[in-house]
Amino acid sequence: MYSIADLQTIIAQTLLQRDFPTEPSNLYDPIRYFLSIGGKRLRPVLTLLATDLFGEKIEKSLSAALAIEVFHNFTLMHDDIMDEAPLRRGKDTVHKKWDTNTAILSGDAMMITSYQLLSKSQTDNLSEVLHIFSKMALEVCEGQQLDMDFGNSPSVTEEDYLQMIRLKTSVLLGAALEIGALIAGANPKDRKLLYEFGVNMGIAFQLQDDLLDIYGDPKKFGKQIGGDIIENKKTFLLINAIRLTKGKEEEKELKGWIKRHANYNVDEKINAITSIYNKYGIKTLAEEKKSFFSDQAFQALEKIDVPANRKQVLITFTKGLFVRES
Amino acid sequence: MYSIADLQTIIAQTLLQRDFPTEPSNLYDPIRYFLSIGGKRLRPVLTLLATDLFGEKIEKSLSAALAIEVFHNFTLMHDDIMDEAPLRRGKDTVHKKWDTNTAILSGDAMMITSYQLLSKSQTDNLSEVLHIFSKMALEVCEGQQLDMDFGNSPSVTEEDYLQMIRLKTSVLLGAALEIGALIAGANPKDRKLLYEFGVNMGIAFQLQDDLLDIYGDPKKFGKQIGGDIIENKKTFLLINAIRLTKGKEEEKELKGWIKRHANYNVDEKINAITSIYNKYGIKTLAEEKKSFFSDQAFQALEKIDVPANRKQVLITFTKGLFVRES
Repeated sequence: MYSIADLQTIIAQTLLQRDFPTEPSNLYDPIRYFLSIGGKRLRPVLTLLATDLFGEKIEKSLSAALAIEVFHNFTLMHDDIMDEAPLRRGKDTVHKKWDTNTAILSGDAMMITSYQLLSKSQTDNLSEVLHIFSKMALEVCEGQQLDMDFGNSPSVTEEDYLQMIRLKTSVLLGAALEIGALIAGANPKDRKLLYEFGVNMGIAFQLQDDLLDIYGDPKKFGKQIGGDIIENKKTFLLINAIRLTKGKEEEKELKGWIKRHANYNVDEKINAITSIYNKYGIKTLAEEKKSFFSDQAFQALEKIDVPANRKQVLITFTKGLFVRES
Repeated sequence: MYSIADLQTIIAQTLLQRDFPTEPSNLYDPIRYFLSIGGKRLRPVLTLLATDLFGEKIEKSLSAALAIEVFHNFTLMHDDIMDEAPLRRGKDTVHKKWDTNTAILSGDAMMITSYQLLSKSQTDNLSEVLHIFSKMALEVCEGQQLDMDFGNSPSVTEEDYLQMIRLKTSVLLGAALEIGALIAGANPKDRKLLYEFGVNMGIAFQLQDDLLDIYGDPKKFGKQIGGDIIENKKTFLLINAIRLTKGKEEEKELKGWIKRHANYNVDEKINAITSIYNKYGIKTLAEEKKSFFSDQAFQALEKIDVPANRKQVLITFTKGLFVRES
């Protein structure tokens, strides 16, 4: 049995030891930089945990786990360009520290590297591993596209939103787990259940993130409270507030705040919108939805045909990621 | 035996029949658009020819051939962003017709699609196919990076240049052929020879392109004559002209033209630099180098252990691509 900290260390060390070429430095330096600025390495840990769950040595899925982490970082590098984000994990993004062309090309090289790592998986099912990975990778692109489309869309429903976060962030958790299970030789039914566990857990995490933007403890959250509100980000909270205030007296106030792009007091906007959320029970709605998806996740895990004690690390790990804020 | 036209038709039809999802349209429409604006499909034809060369059915490598073509188009879509190119094959580039974010993300989805196609290759050597493909794909990124670096570099040698074009454009031809051979079950020695044929041929083609920029027939060339000169592109010709005029009376004139970014007569610049090329025998130098690489290519092909008559289509095809301009 491994602790999560053990697995994180294994991933971090293997990633840093990986021998990227030194030349051309403008291609490979940004990759080394981006992989060195950290991150919790949660996704590759899930791959290793999945392999361990089915009683196989984690070494067998180490290369696939790294592929998942490198792929995840590739998506971040390109998303940062698209979102014009200046910072990632408190450090300069690649397109800021170098330039956009560098971030495009180094990101491309990272995606190729992720396939290179994946191809080295110790498995007789390489074709199936690739199938799961590529399907997920395309879905992540679809999710990013939907997220960008939402910025310009006047009407985004809760259903649209849940589909977007399923694609953009959750299927990667599902695939990370399923690939680890596949390499361990798990049967298709158990693999699917583990995938469902990952996807539902991912949706629950994202809903938690939406909640923490307003109801989180600023010291623990690590981001600016109300950041989503300032950016008019169409989160689960905002989408439901728009829906529930329709025809009510707060409709005009909410829409007025959304339209105002400059010359306003940030705290005033955050307070005003938070008051609307509170009045319309948006926090409870989001918490209920989060519970729904985390229940779905744990029910799927429950059904997997391995002894309960083997599931304990995964359960403890996942529950540790669900922070209680109220 | 297939004609080249037959193979081009097979590729074009299979590409168009490929069922890309319709939604999100902002992700998949640009891919459909870019694949529909044509191109000669030379690279996937090489893959099919290589499979045919070793007596195997071309259907076995059709999926890999499409992977090569989709990958090639992915590199063009991202290169067009980096080069700020407004047109591709006479049509708007994706970042012009849509925007940069669209071209980044649709390009990413194309690269994933190319791996998806590659994974469907009918072969027992999938791991080896992926190895060849990913190595080539990273080298193409390295070549693009070197090309961008050259723009800012005061001293680029002929050796640097040949290495850059080997990576940026030639290894893709080599890999297209080697993968077709591998799927056909060719032995490692013959596969390597075919790869060498492709890479050397690719370098010769690029040198021909450099020559055609100035010495080509405008009606046949399809691009503006002197385009490289206007852009100060560090081609084989310019690099050698800079080297050979060092300390000579034309040194100042050549450098003066390179420095001048605006307020000059385009034809005057093209004529002046062409005169320098002619005086210093640059055309002959480039033609000799082109012959050297095409000789290397055909020598490698010669050594491949299949009956000479089987090689004929590949020889005719390749020779057809070498245009005589003088």
